[in-house]
Amino acid sequence: MQRIDGRYPDQLRPVQITRRYLKYPEGSALVEVGNTRVLCTAMAEERLPGWMKEGTGGWITAEYSMLPGSTATRKPRESSLGKVGGRTQEIQRLIGRSLRAVCDLSQLGPMTIWIDCDVLQADGGTRTAAITGAFVALADALAALRQRGAISGYPLRSFLAATSVGLVNGEALLDLSFAEDSVAEVDMNLVMTGDGRLVEIQGSAERSPFDRIQFDRLLALGETGISQLIAAQRAALGADAAGIGRRGEEE
Amino acid sequence: MQRIDGRYPDQLRPVQITRRYLKYPEGSALVEVGNTRVLCTAMAEERLPGWMKEGTGGWITAEYSMLPGSTATRKPRESSLGKVGGRTQEIQRLIGRSLRAVCDLSQLGPMTIWIDCDVLQADGGTRTAAITGAFVALADALAALRQRGAISGYPLRSFLAATSVGLVNGEALLDLSFAEDSVAEVDMNLVMTGDGRLVEIQGSAERSPFDRIQFDRLLALGETGISQLIAAQRAALGADAAGIGRRGEEE
Amino acid sequence: MQRIDGRYPDQLRPVQITRRYLKYPEGSALVEVGNTRVLCTAMAEERLPGWMKEGTGGWITAEYSMLPGSTATRKPRESSLGKVGGRTQEIQRLIGRSLRAVCDLSQLGPMTIWIDCDVLQADGGTRTAAITGAFVALADALAALRQRGAISGYPLRSFLAATSVGLVNGEALLDLSFAEDSVAEVDMNLVMTGDGRLVEIQGSAERSPFDRIQFDRLLALGETGISQLIAAQRAALGADAAGIGRRGEEE
Amino acid sequence: MQRIDGRYPDQLRPVQITRRYLKYPEGSALVEVGNTRVLCTAMAEERLPGWMKEGTGGWITAEYSMLPGSTATRKPRESSLGKVGGRTQEIQRLIGRSLRAVCDLSQLGPMTIWIDCDVLQADGGTRTAAITGAFVALADALAALRQRGAISGYPLRSFLAATSVGLVNGEALLDLSFAEDSVAEVDMNLVMTGDGRLVEIQGSAERSPFDRIQFDRLLALGETGISQLIAAQRAALGADAAGIGRRGEEE
Amino acid sequence: MQRIDGRYPDQLRPVQITRRYLKYPEGSALVEVGNTRVLCTAMAEERLPGWMKEGTGGWITAEYSMLPGSTATRKPRESSLGKVGGRTQEIQRLIGRSLRAVCDLSQLGPMTIWIDCDVLQADGGTRTAAITGAFVALADALAALRQRGAISGYPLRSFLAATSVGLVNGEALLDLSFAEDSVAEVDMNLVMTGDGRLVEIQGSAERSPFDRIQFDRLLALGETGISQLIAAQRAALGADAAGIGRRGEEE
Amino acid sequence: MQRIDGRYPDQLRPVQITRRYLKYPEGSALVEVGNTRVLCTAMAEERLPGWMKEGTGGWITAEYSMLPGSTATRKPRESSLGKVGGRTQEIQRLIGRSLRAVCDLSQLGPMTIWIDCDVLQADGGTRTAAITGAFVALADALAALRQRGAISGYPLRSFLAATSVGLVNGEALLDLSFAEDSVAEVDMNLVMTGDGRLVEIQGSAERSPFDRIQFDRLLALGETGISQLIAAQRAALGADAAGIGRRGEEE
Repeated sequence: MQRIDGRYPDQLRPVQITRRYLKYPEGSALVEVGNTRVLCTAMAEERLPGWMKEGTGGWITAEYSMLPGSTATRKPRESSLGKVGGRTQEIQRLIGRSLRAVCDLSQLGPMTIWIDCDVLQADGGTRTAAITGAFVALADALAALRQRGAISGYPLRSFLAATSVGLVNGEALLDLSFAEDSVAEVDMNLVMTGDGRLVEIQGSAERSPFDRIQFDRLLALGETGISQLIAAQRAALGADAAGIGRRGEEE
Repeated sequence: MQRIDGRYPDQLRPVQITRRYLKYPEGSALVEVGNTRVLCTAMAEERLPGWMKEGTGGWITAEYSMLPGSTATRKPRESSLGKVGGRTQEIQRLIGRSLRAVCDLSQLGPMTIWIDCDVLQADGGTRTAAITGAFVALADALAALRQRGAISGYPLRSFLAATSVGLVNGEALLDLSFAEDSVAEVDMNLVMTGDGRLVEIQGSAERSPFDRIQFDRLLALGETGISQLIAAQRAALGADAAGIGRRGEEE
Repeated sequence: MQRIDGRYPDQLRPVQITRRYLKYPEGSALVEVGNTRVLCTAMAEERLPGWMKEGTGGWITAEYSMLPGSTATRKPRESSLGKVGGRTQEIQRLIGRSLRAVCDLSQLGPMTIWIDCDVLQADGGTRTAAITGAFVALADALAALRQRGAISGYPLRSFLAATSVGLVNGEALLDLSFAEDSVAEVDMNLVMTGDGRLVEIQGSAERSPFDRIQFDRLLALGETGISQLIAAQRAALGADAAGIGRRGEEE
Repeated sequence: MQRIDGRYPDQLRPVQITRRYLKYPEGSALVEVGNTRVLCTAMAEERLPGWMKEGTGGWITAEYSMLPGSTATRKPRESSLGKVGGRTQEIQRLIGRSLRAVCDLSQLGPMTIWIDCDVLQADGGTRTAAITGAFVALADALAALRQRGAISGYPLRSFLAATSVGLVNGEALLDLSFAEDSVAEVDMNLVMTGDGRLVEIQGSAERSPFDRIQFDRLLALGETGISQLIAAQRAALGADAAGIGRRGEEE
Repeated sequence: MQRIDGRYPDQLRPVQITRRYLKYPEGSALVEVGNTRVLCTAMAEERLPGWMKEGTGGWITAEYSMLPGSTATRKPRESSLGKVGGRTQEIQRLIGRSLRAVCDLSQLGPMTIWIDCDVLQADGGTRTAAITGAFVALADALAALRQRGAISGYPLRSFLAATSVGLVNGEALLDLSFAEDSVAEVDMNLVMTGDGRLVEIQGSAERSPFDRIQFDRLLALGETGISQLIAAQRAALGADAAGIGRRGEEE
Repeated sequence: MQRIDGRYPDQLRPVQITRRYLKYPEGSALVEVGNTRVLCTAMAEERLPGWMKEGTGGWITAEYSMLPGSTATRKPRESSLGKVGGRTQEIQRLIGRSLRAVCDLSQLGPMTIWIDCDVLQADGGTRTAAITGAFVALADALAALRQRGAISGYPLRSFLAATSVGLVNGEALLDLSFAEDSVAEVDMNLVMTGDGRLVEIQGSAERSPFDRIQFDRLLALGETGISQLIAAQRAALGADAAGIGRRGEEE
């Protein structure tokens, strides 16, 4: 079966990661997965969240937003609506949790790293593209902090990327576009590390419950995609990827 | 290994479901799983959400809240804070999505069924207990609507229950209490149907990523637990469970 | 004349007070007056409100809320509406003021006692039932604080309970149910102490102004009802009621 | 005993009512009671509140606010704080309920009359001054509506005014100034009609509960004050007061 | 050409400034320009805004609001709407910026001076009347602060007043009333000092862009009007105007 | 005198306009002025604002926002803060008013054109860059609407662009960068048409009032800059610019 855009079921859309897209943030990356374009930044603030005690390391938090022009029908601003919607909150919690899972927060010192993911154009998979791009921005920010002496060691324990998989007309597909996503029976987002372990798995039966065999097929597809995304991250970071996974204590 | 409360790794806490706990709602159930107590109600409103068109059936939506006295440290009210938090929104979206997945919405007519889950006492697993209890309240509400002629047919396609599983000190445990949940390396919520298919799976590596073997063990534990929860639902509903899974079209 | 539910004009509905309904709060009570059911808790927080200076004792504040399933037509959540309504604020101010009037706040130390009253089921008189139940929860909380050494002395100066009275078809009735309340010409809430003095009186001519003779009759009915409610509180508290009204200084 | 400002216990502060203070509203009055100054307006809008059905008459609703410069310490604006406080809501509900009690709403037609009470200067008794002034603004607005043919008949059933009474150092005082109010043991607001009947009574034991004898003394003081306030309203309205209390049906 | 109200194109409406209109604020003035009436107050608070560092002087901030009865159609309260609108924010920023431009903030010490401008009646030019009146209230407040020793020196560098000008049917008019403003092709607000320099200029082509010649004519009209307004301020302040423009350092 | 970045006083920063930057909106342009980068979109919605009557044409409204990573210190999201700030509202009102001034709204039909300006990177002059870019997006959107038959005629009456000018150390400068803007004594934003007429002028004395001579010099500088910006717009639009300024009625 060929897909709407001619891809094979196990084929990612073209991926492009533009590092240092902006001049002010410590780290920034424009990630493009097909027509989906997300601008990711990482900025350090020398302050802990209110609920966190000094001396227990730092924190990473994420915010996500869609620009009004990112969708076919204009997306009203959440600032104008006066509140952040449930979907947005769910996504920003997912991004933050995922990045924290591969970062040794105890090495950060009393700082908050703000991850911001702003969707310039949305064609499915914005939350997973956001995670993939935010990882690169975070890596750059940590390198910058290291360079200016704000941290020592290499807090990133491993690479991290994300993709979506789903069942469409009973067939398992990798990296759903918006057109595919809106007719999928099952939709699953996977966040995995460079060594193939799971960080987050969120699967929903949008139309009908799914069984173990279908589930295993989806998981396998996801693994394939994520290893390619991590290769793209590695290429984008080049020599700067060297510290990822190296233990800070060995310094 | 014995658990804090003396349970075996694959043992649920005592489950009790009190149907018709309140007199006004079409369906209501107080569900208790160990010390966790959630009051679930289902109420029909003859109005569709604004975004939904007439003639395409009805809708099910859910709200979740924790009472201030439900936790060891008083939980400030979200009404006083002036906004619904991210965790709450994530949970109410999960509850609504899960119930919609086993209900044929096209049989409902132009109505919204409101599911409300209010946590009276929280000791871990409130969102999964909420789903388990809300299913019973929903079943009763649909029966009541059927009796008064507001719907014909049996919209519930199957039973539905939920539980949590997790890795604590490397060991896979079923139905985490709060004390266990707060030290778990991996935390996963599972929503499944009466015939063992998956509706929702949400797993997070709170502390360290997990591999496929660990994942499979967790999934198996969850299946065991959910089949017991569904047995408890079946017992609570008694003869009224007869219509669940029966096709409305056969009427 | 017999009332809708068969009561005499000066007859309370059946009253039941279940102490220690929840495990976490210092004090908790489920109060039932006829079909009205309110869950009341009292929890101490070691912090004063922002406007209060250290060294001037403690504070008692109250919050009140109706669960969505507590009324015949679903009650939308104030958290979802994004603000606390005028009726709710009026009620929580009344509860807080009433309890503070019988408590010697100077004995409390720098703490806030939070009273939470959540209406599980509403059939008229929820605010007065809340005060009656909250008093029991507060008494238990103060006893717990005393036991753990957080306060010395007995800050409660007297018992406190509340009921409603009203004119329905020109007749003075005690403890209005919802059906009666919605047709009453005059509605009055009374909060009184164990020795028959007034703490709060709030009377409104819903339909037509009332004269002194009618007013005096209502006040007399209220006194009768409140002395019975205080008897119920006394029974619920048992030996633990001993300290109420005893001066802390005599310790 | 003489009071801080030299008044006798049963003496009102000087009262002045300036009708038609503003040019746009149908009715407006600046009411001054001692140093307390409240600007009251009544404006008709040809629309019912959302919850009210056509054909059942009209509605009267009230809003109350204190200007930032009305108090010794600047009063922050509720618009800047982003929400209307509990005290404000309580007061505006009281004003609206009081005026509705003496107005035959069925004569109004499908309109809302908005009462706005803005405190220019506050020296105690702002809510009762607001009611006294709002009545005059409402009478003028109804006359204007009658003149332009929007209503026929005389919807006002009687005069209406309000004052506060209280116990200060055990003595019953009429019309408390701010200095007296802030040390009162008991504070009570009374709203009464021209023929001496009660519309609203709200008494609070701020410091210590009060008995029936004290209560009766306060009520008597209030009656005296209100009859004087109504005389002042009558003087301000002059010939225009003729229709008040006249039955609309007799037209 | 004569204007709607009989004025010449270069004629202001009658101006009246009532100083010390209220008893609590350090400075207050009721300013009337034709039918436009604005109550302006200035109150000192011994606290800096959060973003300002100690030791760098003080701050002046302004708030503006329209009373519901100030306009022909009732103006809904921004407190009830739950947010401060864009027009209001624009105006209060303008008022604050204008006053700060003629005040040496370094002489103020760690305090915030709150300027409040409440429109009692609106007939065009409320923002410029507010600036004109607020200057008088500020002058009085600074004098009061000086008298009680909270500041030394004379922080006001010069007089400051404001007016509007506009093009109506191609003709340049001074001090637009509401009726003129609503049909104007160009609307411009000017804030100027006592020595004729510009502090703020805000011109908008409401209907059609304007050229330099038209612009110059408007500017000249504005200068004429402002010098008359400053004369009115001078008359209102009398001998108290002496310190304005005198250097504080020369003391 | 040379400026920080080596420019002459009357020199613009390099300007680049990328049309059709996004695929969904009817019009979109990425405008870059030096390091300032603003993404502008124009999207048509077939609905009028609530206050506008059918049959009177269409409407253009604008929203503006800064991305968190656009500034040196992270800019907190207004959606997270829960409200749109005063500066933002001022800017979006300015953008909307400016575009409406050169568009014949009566030709639009019952539709709202939403202009969105999102600042990706901020280095001074974001609001004027937004207007310059938004004009291009609007022109493209109107062309698209014309092509699909939603409008006939050419509603744009003329070109429109904007720039800032200011006094820095007494010298008049064109197109201030952020570093210049933050030390400017006077800051002025100018919006002008293709034939050199004024649409908006907003000048503020940030530090000291300014006289007519300084003002005239600033205005002249602005005219120079705007004519260059319009040349850049013309180049970007190419042949599609043909309809601008052509009367729709001649069709």
